[in-house]
Amino acid sequence: MTNTAVAVIGLGMMGQALAAAFVNAAYPTTVWNRTPGKAERLVEMGASQAPTVADAVEAAPLVIVCVRDYDAVRESLAPAEAHLSGKVLVNLTSGASDEARAMAGWAAERGAGYLDGAIMMTPPGIGAPETVILYGGSPQLYETHEKILAVLGGGTLLLSDDVGIPSLYDVALLGIMWSTFNGFMHAAALLNTEKIAATDFLPFAKDWLTGVASFLTTYANQIDAGDYAASDATLETQLPPLLHLLHESRIRGIDATMHEYTKTLLDEAIANGHALDSYARIIEHFRTPAA
Amino acid sequence: MTNTAVAVIGLGMMGQALAAAFVNAAYPTTVWNRTPGKAERLVEMGASQAPTVADAVEAAPLVIVCVRDYDAVRESLAPAEAHLSGKVLVNLTSGASDEARAMAGWAAERGAGYLDGAIMMTPPGIGAPETVILYGGSPQLYETHEKILAVLGGGTLLLSDDVGIPSLYDVALLGIMWSTFNGFMHAAALLNTEKIAATDFLPFAKDWLTGVASFLTTYANQIDAGDYAASDATLETQLPPLLHLLHESRIRGIDATMHEYTKTLLDEAIANGHALDSYARIIEHFRTPAA
Repeated sequence: MTNTAVAVIGLGMMGQALAAAFVNAAYPTTVWNRTPGKAERLVEMGASQAPTVADAVEAAPLVIVCVRDYDAVRESLAPAEAHLSGKVLVNLTSGASDEARAMAGWAAERGAGYLDGAIMMTPPGIGAPETVILYGGSPQLYETHEKILAVLGGGTLLLSDDVGIPSLYDVALLGIMWSTFNGFMHAAALLNTEKIAATDFLPFAKDWLTGVASFLTTYANQIDAGDYAASDATLETQLPPLLHLLHESRIRGIDATMHEYTKTLLDEAIANGHALDSYARIIEHFRTPAA
Repeated sequence: MTNTAVAVIGLGMMGQALAAAFVNAAYPTTVWNRTPGKAERLVEMGASQAPTVADAVEAAPLVIVCVRDYDAVRESLAPAEAHLSGKVLVNLTSGASDEARAMAGWAAERGAGYLDGAIMMTPPGIGAPETVILYGGSPQLYETHEKILAVLGGGTLLLSDDVGIPSLYDVALLGIMWSTFNGFMHAAALLNTEKIAATDFLPFAKDWLTGVASFLTTYANQIDAGDYAASDATLETQLPPLLHLLHESRIRGIDATMHEYTKTLLDEAIANGHALDSYARIIEHFRTPAA
């Protein structure tokens, strides 16, 4: 039995990594890119380059699309619309949940099945066992193609039958990433004022993040229960060290805008009578933005 | 050989946990608190309650202080000033680096040795093997008392001969904690708009944080080298998903102030010609706050 053929539309850094993973796993792979010259290395590896996007779509039952944005998905596929009926479109383009839902409708109108995926990794990690790719769409469609999709990452899974959910997880996780990056950059800048190197601070920060993650378990349970009563680390007890952080930032000339924002969150919760709650209480601020 | 005697000044939740750890490890422990009634459980466990702070200081060569703030350290110890000569004062009160340095001078004027410590744990974790307590001060003084100090946490270590450094690490690490907490709360609020429970999102967030931490290793090396050239995740490629995050927050009514701040950081770096740098470039913003 030969492997299913796959087409990869879009050969940016990510598209090239996706196509290379399929070629390496011995799936017959056809590639196409809007501007030429991106397929050379892949063709050397064994991929076929389609002269048009319609040829690419014709070449395989499974069509992977990874381009700049959802508008570019429509633009790229426009010349192949008549060939989409009966195909399965797997959209790995980064976007928002409402765009993914609209795209599923667009595919259905053209007779194509649709899965939307969010790649939680940079291109060099494609194909690795720990690489997570989150999917939304029909469970039956997902199961039919699970084996080939798992070629792209060992942590591939179906999150929901709603094609909008992977995009939402994607941006939610990226938000945690940027927040943590900002916290680290601020911390490293603070310590650098005492000539402490970032690499010397790093092991403390990494161990600390493990502890921070374990607090999240407690907080997630409190959020789901709607009960934020703290066992030890109350909001009240976190205010004095936060003031020390603002003080250290001020005397060392380090921008503390993000931690001043945290102070507004603590002040608001404490003013609303939640001084003895845990940090999980802060989710209520995000749920109900201040006017 | 009997264990060194220790005095614990201040019996808030943390002070009680410290004293209990010493008693449990069979160190003769004398306790004192400004307001009475906090020592009962400790006395039942085997601690001695001193009638005055001077008596507490007299009772032991090693004096641990853990009170509300550095002003409270001075106020608490004022009646015992004449008894401090020849003692070693270990200040575990939360404060700022400049306060710690001033306190070391205050102790020296009274003939006392001084170590300043930052407890990176909540009271229930005191005494655990993974509990980190960071010290600053004379290496000789630290080594002399290392064994008894390690009773409070297996991760006890001397960071620097500068007594101000532990406070700086303390607030730097707490800043990372609050940033990460805020990122998680925002993410959980986003997902909750789709009725996804925080505990269902939790395993994704925890795995993700492990990946985020591994990026920090790359970034710390770039920071120390002063070379931010990105191998894959450039600032430029992070802007579209950040816009998706802002969009998802807006359509779901979730406050995105913190991520709008991140957008100002990306915009600033890109406008300054650093579109192809990694996120490590952002440390330059913190070093040189915008006017």
